Amino acid sequence: MPAPAAPVMTASEVSSYLDEVFPQIKTNGDNIAVIDVAPGNALVRLEADDKHLRPGGTVSGPTMFMLADLAAYAVILAHIGRVALAVTTNLNINFLMKPEPGPLDATATILKLGKRLVVTDIAISDSGGELVAHATATYSIPPRT
Amino acid sequence: MPAPAAPVMTASEVSSYLDEVFPQIKTNGDNIAVIDVAPGNALVRLEADDKHLRPGGTVSGPTMFMLADLAAYAVILAHIGRVALAVTTNLNINFLMKPEPGPLDATATILKLGKRLVVTDIAISDSGGELVAHATATYSIPPRT
Amino acid sequence: MPAPAAPVMTASEVSSYLDEVFPQIKTNGDNIAVIDVAPGNALVRLEADDKHLRPGGTVSGPTMFMLADLAAYAVILAHIGRVALAVTTNLNINFLMKPEPGPLDATATILKLGKRLVVTDIAISDSGGELVAHATATYSIPPRT
Amino acid sequence: MPAPAAPVMTASEVSSYLDEVFPQIKTNGDNIAVIDVAPGNALVRLEADDKHLRPGGTVSGPTMFMLADLAAYAVILAHIGRVALAVTTNLNINFLMKPEPGPLDATATILKLGKRLVVTDIAISDSGGELVAHATATYSIPPRT
Repeated sequence: MPAPAAPVMTASEVSSYLDEVFPQIKTNGDNIAVIDVAPGNALVRLEADDKHLRPGGTVSGPTMFMLADLAAYAVILAHIGRVALAVTTNLNINFLMKPEPGPLDATATILKLGKRLVVTDIAISDSGGELVAHATATYSIPPRT
Repeated sequence: MPAPAAPVMTASEVSSYLDEVFPQIKTNGDNIAVIDVAPGNALVRLEADDKHLRPGGTVSGPTMFMLADLAAYAVILAHIGRVALAVTTNLNINFLMKPEPGPLDATATILKLGKRLVVTDIAISDSGGELVAHATATYSIPPRT
Repeated sequence: MPAPAAPVMTASEVSSYLDEVFPQIKTNGDNIAVIDVAPGNALVRLEADDKHLRPGGTVSGPTMFMLADLAAYAVILAHIGRVALAVTTNLNINFLMKPEPGPLDATATILKLGKRLVVTDIAISDSGGELVAHATATYSIPPRT
Repeated sequence: MPAPAAPVMTASEVSSYLDEVFPQIKTNGDNIAVIDVAPGNALVRLEADDKHLRPGGTVSGPTMFMLADLAAYAVILAHIGRVALAVTTNLNINFLMKPEPGPLDATATILKLGKRLVVTDIAISDSGGELVAHATATYSIPPRT
């Protein structure tokens, strides 16, 4: 299999950039950070707490969607650099288990890095390593000038 | 085509029930309400404001996901009654345009009302009637006792 | 809601073009035709027979995928003209009922007609008008010169 | 991470069973076989030839859908045994590259093995190891008596 592209930003550079372009994350009080970046993938962690829960006391769907979408964005930024206006065109998510509050790890992997479209795969696991959700997301990349 | 099932709850009953089981909606300050319920569908409106924006000043993906998911839940509740623990198993969303802040209307339609799975279609439009996102969502219904 | 774009090809022009670029359809013996084209949508009919069945005697998933994909392609051709190399980038399909052999009607609707991406919605019904499958498909359009 | 479930059927047992329940595969002349089964996954190979091509001479979408769907079914059979009437409820596929005729390998992995739903991930690669398509599929499992 061909080697995945090398990242052009570090985990802390991606984290800082996300804080800058998504100030809402901090405003909403979400505790979320890019933990690691490697060729072809990125790991993003959310500390899910009370405000992320749904009836029954488990982490809500929109919270996992947000984490999946952000992890996809992080892996793309890490590999193509600062492109704030990259936008999600499609996201398909399967909810597999209802996670308890606590840390959730999203590992995003680049499936295709095209000029116009980037396709990613995102696996979300709980602190016990159980897969709780799985998504695929496509981002459209604006023409670079 | 066969007639869709008749609703068993009114729009205001569904709204009240959502407020009760999702107190986070109020806590997060989201202005969201079930506007209408009819055989086979439901209309849910969100007033998107500053806290729902992403870089570029348009409504974020997670906000539209949340609205699509809630509209799907609303149309299901309206047709099968109070089932707090119905859970989303799959949601696929296509983002078509970047909506400005303002009211967003989500019309959820039941495609299949099975015993175990309910499949819904959700169209989100802005105040000009432009389609801004489209989703399909599947909910799993717990066995009724 | 804004008016959908007007078609630029008739149903029979689209059918003829599909026969030309997809000779496999005839080779495989599929009986499939574009029945109608209207602003924003197209109707494609397949006569499902023995070779389209799966265990249990109902129409197979790949058959319904093929019909959904072809209906999406037909509605795109009808609205942007002959673009043989338009390609499906994403297709999400929900199977709702197991259809018996017989005619299946796929109504494809354009959700977004962008310069690079076209997003479509496809509803497949059996001869009794029951919805048997629902799909959304995204096509990438090559740059026009 | 928890260990995946152990298979209950071998690759050749799954292949034989598919030949028995899907005689259409042979009738259509598809050259397809289950190559390997391991805990949590299965490898299915299709020799794509002329009848699987689309305009431009690359392997068609319906062919890759069929391969993805069959690989998902194979991994499920391998892990829960002969359940002919398991049915696909949802399949989402991203087409990443246009593959040339030749062998296509589909690796299906179980993401969740529930009592009612099984969620799988399918990666399709060409003979050079390039990822050409990626899918997720959900199957509904009939109640076992």
